[in-house]
Amino acid sequence: MGRTSDARPKILQAGRDLMARRGYTALGVAEICATAGVPKGSFYYFFDSKQALAEAVIEEHWANQGAQWAELLGGDKPPLERLRDLFDATTEVQRTAQKDTGAVTGCLFGNLTLELSTQDSAIRERLQEIFEAQIEMVAAVVELARQNGDIKVTDSREAARSLVAQLEGMVLFAKLLNDPAQLDQMWSHSLALLGA
Amino acid sequence: MGRTSDARPKILQAGRDLMARRGYTALGVAEICATAGVPKGSFYYFFDSKQALAEAVIEEHWANQGAQWAELLGGDKPPLERLRDLFDATTEVQRTAQKDTGAVTGCLFGNLTLELSTQDSAIRERLQEIFEAQIEMVAAVVELARQNGDIKVTDSREAARSLVAQLEGMVLFAKLLNDPAQLDQMWSHSLALLGA
Repeated sequence: MGRTSDARPKILQAGRDLMARRGYTALGVAEICATAGVPKGSFYYFFDSKQALAEAVIEEHWANQGAQWAELLGGDKPPLERLRDLFDATTEVQRTAQKDTGAVTGCLFGNLTLELSTQDSAIRERLQEIFEAQIEMVAAVVELARQNGDIKVTDSREAARSLVAQLEGMVLFAKLLNDPAQLDQMWSHSLALLGA
Repeated sequence: MGRTSDARPKILQAGRDLMARRGYTALGVAEICATAGVPKGSFYYFFDSKQALAEAVIEEHWANQGAQWAELLGGDKPPLERLRDLFDATTEVQRTAQKDTGAVTGCLFGNLTLELSTQDSAIRERLQEIFEAQIEMVAAVVELARQNGDIKVTDSREAARSLVAQLEGMVLFAKLLNDPAQLDQMWSHSLALLGA
């Protein structure tokens, strides 16, 4: 059972790493299995298809990222500090990815949105839910800051949508230029956007 | 010569349309030729490879878009009106795409950035130049607005980078949700970002 029981996480990790570097469409199951070091039979024991693997990669990534966001955006710090922690953590993720792999790989959800959202409706719907959840989490903290009088916004949800859009756009530039420093001014832009 | 002479634009258009809907990796030359209604020989008469076609599609799209941006951002209107015209035109492009094809196809350059920038260095370098040119064009008008005292920014180039990032992020949401209305609040966000 030893080989079988660690095959699933190995396949998930190989899928996640390869999708981050090369996207979804370019991958084949054989390559994923070779990278994971598992036989093809193991793949199809755990996953019906490459699409099923992509869905599992998305779920695992959101389980981790959503928990991190909840931790950073919860707690007792002043709301603007929590938002800043979130932006700092996002920058750190891209910096670490570049240090470990040589490439800023960007945002898995953003990458899949632009690659797949006009093609795969199951993945598209899940990505819609995830971005919606991100925006709601940010909106709750923006609303606290608004109630504190820290910022000038009239619609916390709209402001949160704009912050997450800014994040996605800046991560796109960081990926394009393979330069995590693209993200360094994001917080001051966000403060301006919020009228802080 | 009739068939040959209109084959190139037909191939370009098919490549552009298919890349907008399904990305680059998923396409094959045979499908592009079938959509264009030209024989494979015509494809290889004009293009060495699918990559060469993608490069030509990028050049053609930027020739058109860059000219439109130059027109909107030049002229005699007050600088903030010119920026607003640019944002309105961008929204209109996505609205028209949805009306014509059923799908918000997003930004060709953003799509290719997230799909290809870690893989194809020639396309990556060209996309870097194009985004750089976009940011410079916006920065020139932001600088005019700053000199007019219309906005509160200290670094016009940084502010322009942030505006283009916002644009890319919002277009990503519009594509994900197949909803051009995602772009409707972009101008008010941009004014906030600029401290107008």
